[in-house]
Amino acid sequence: MTEPVVLAVDIGGTKIAAAVVDGDGRIVAEGRTPTLAQETPEVLWKALTDLLDEVHADAGRPSPAGVGVGCSGPMTWPDAEVSPLNIPAWRGFPLRRRLSERYPGLPVRVHNDAVCVAVGEHWRGAGRGHGNVLGMVVSTGVGGGLVLGGRLADGASGNAGHVGHIVVEPGGPPCPCGGRGCLEAVASGPSLLRWARGEGWRPDDPDATGADLAADALAGHRLAREAVRRAGRAVGVALASATHLCDLDTAVIGGGVSQVGAPLFDAVREALDVHARMDFARRLRVVPTALGQSSGLIGAAALVLAGDRYWTAG
Amino acid sequence: MTEPVVLAVDIGGTKIAAAVVDGDGRIVAEGRTPTLAQETPEVLWKALTDLLDEVHADAGRPSPAGVGVGCSGPMTWPDAEVSPLNIPAWRGFPLRRRLSERYPGLPVRVHNDAVCVAVGEHWRGAGRGHGNVLGMVVSTGVGGGLVLGGRLADGASGNAGHVGHIVVEPGGPPCPCGGRGCLEAVASGPSLLRWARGEGWRPDDPDATGADLAADALAGHRLAREAVRRAGRAVGVALASATHLCDLDTAVIGGGVSQVGAPLFDAVREALDVHARMDFARRLRVVPTALGQSSGLIGAAALVLAGDRYWTAG
Repeated sequence: MTEPVVLAVDIGGTKIAAAVVDGDGRIVAEGRTPTLAQETPEVLWKALTDLLDEVHADAGRPSPAGVGVGCSGPMTWPDAEVSPLNIPAWRGFPLRRRLSERYPGLPVRVHNDAVCVAVGEHWRGAGRGHGNVLGMVVSTGVGGGLVLGGRLADGASGNAGHVGHIVVEPGGPPCPCGGRGCLEAVASGPSLLRWARGEGWRPDDPDATGADLAADALAGHRLAREAVRRAGRAVGVALASATHLCDLDTAVIGGGVSQVGAPLFDAVREALDVHARMDFARRLRVVPTALGQSSGLIGAAALVLAGDRYWTAG
Repeated sequence: MTEPVVLAVDIGGTKIAAAVVDGDGRIVAEGRTPTLAQETPEVLWKALTDLLDEVHADAGRPSPAGVGVGCSGPMTWPDAEVSPLNIPAWRGFPLRRRLSERYPGLPVRVHNDAVCVAVGEHWRGAGRGHGNVLGMVVSTGVGGGLVLGGRLADGASGNAGHVGHIVVEPGGPPCPCGGRGCLEAVASGPSLLRWARGEGWRPDDPDATGADLAADALAGHRLAREAVRRAGRAVGVALASATHLCDLDTAVIGGGVSQVGAPLFDAVREALDVHARMDFARRLRVVPTALGQSSGLIGAAALVLAGDRYWTAG
């Protein structure tokens, strides 16, 4: 294990993952627990701290250099009073302050979970060595993080990277954000399912999920395939806009919807062929995430271990 | 005059402006000359250097600390071999090298003219004091520059800020860039005119320009007004995408088309009301440029005078 090590946490709507991560970005010990999203704030807090104690013990209780956390949004930033859409248990929960009280003297840094995926992939994954990278997660929602000039761009309030709300179809479907025609309203898992069902996709299982739709797409089912292509084209339109605005060299795509692979990525490239024609934009490299489920944990660790590049706040 | 001073140049398709700018961003002496866009490379070069000599003499020949230049794109960056679309005289013209040879020992810094407008407005204009600003020019084309975290974002090849190629209508009109449905294809002056004529706008003067269309819009002519509103809504859609991706606090809009004022800005805000609904995005401030015709010159000067913020290259 390469010193220093940090405690890293990734808090999502269904599970919390925690790990001890070493200075090279390697996971030394790791654990998971269900997110008790409907419980009281303190029950969820105890599940989190129990998990942290457990992975810390598993790693042999090394002395941590800090705590890095990715958490579903929204949150205030950098104070991290978190109100995750998918975790009703926490509304304005002072996550950073509570962790700072529990780990006195250590830096505690909290960021959006999709930002942590982008950071993890830039630090140790598919974006490594590239200076201008958009990392995105296409899943229940569509989120992301933006690295420009080798550093995380946070924007005015820590909200840079909301790629899911690039407008890809101004007259398109309503979006959970209150807007219309956002990428998320077209390409998220639930949006895909809604569109496919609306067009007549009838899986055997009435509770079929995005994974079932992906399986049908890979098996060549026409409507499922078209649903995935439609999502991919929307991602491509958003990437064309993003790369024209930010002159990206690399887009890294992860999240459940991206697991379908070629049918999605081919449609992304097809839309880029139409919409990203300027020389600099044609150079955009589009790749899947390289760290799998661990991107977010490794990115959370990087907020502390590589704070010069990924942490601009106090 | 506050030391140091720099020589600043703004090279566009119809005119070249040059100035001596002091350390506070004030123009000490200024001159203009037509861009001899169809002449030989050396004839245009001589017109530029004669103009520089003239304004330098007018300012009393102060010792300059460097030369800052904004030039129509495209160009290689930061070497600035320029091939401006609207200046056929220069194709791969080594502007930075030639200026460095003429001013040995002085820093010479060249950037896209719309980037210089954004920089000028951030340094001394409507974006002053704000950390995350998109400056844009809506004119014959639509260009811009991006300031994030208080510094100019250049992207992978100096091309960040191409806001005119954010996709606002994926099935929309073809764009000069080769793409489709870009902001520029909807909101540039020529695009506006084309749309208005297509819809039946019949000005008395067959050579009517964007300025005539703007005048008609202000006079309440229905088609002219709708043309301007359509452009404004497209700008608003692009700004919603940009602010979701980059978490901007301010958008500064200049250029000929923006001169029409309220009919355009009202439509921009109308589209933002529909498409920028998240709390952080609703805080976006949209304002006109404050430095008028001088933004580009003052921004060119800032490449040298405030290079820590606006010049990331060697």
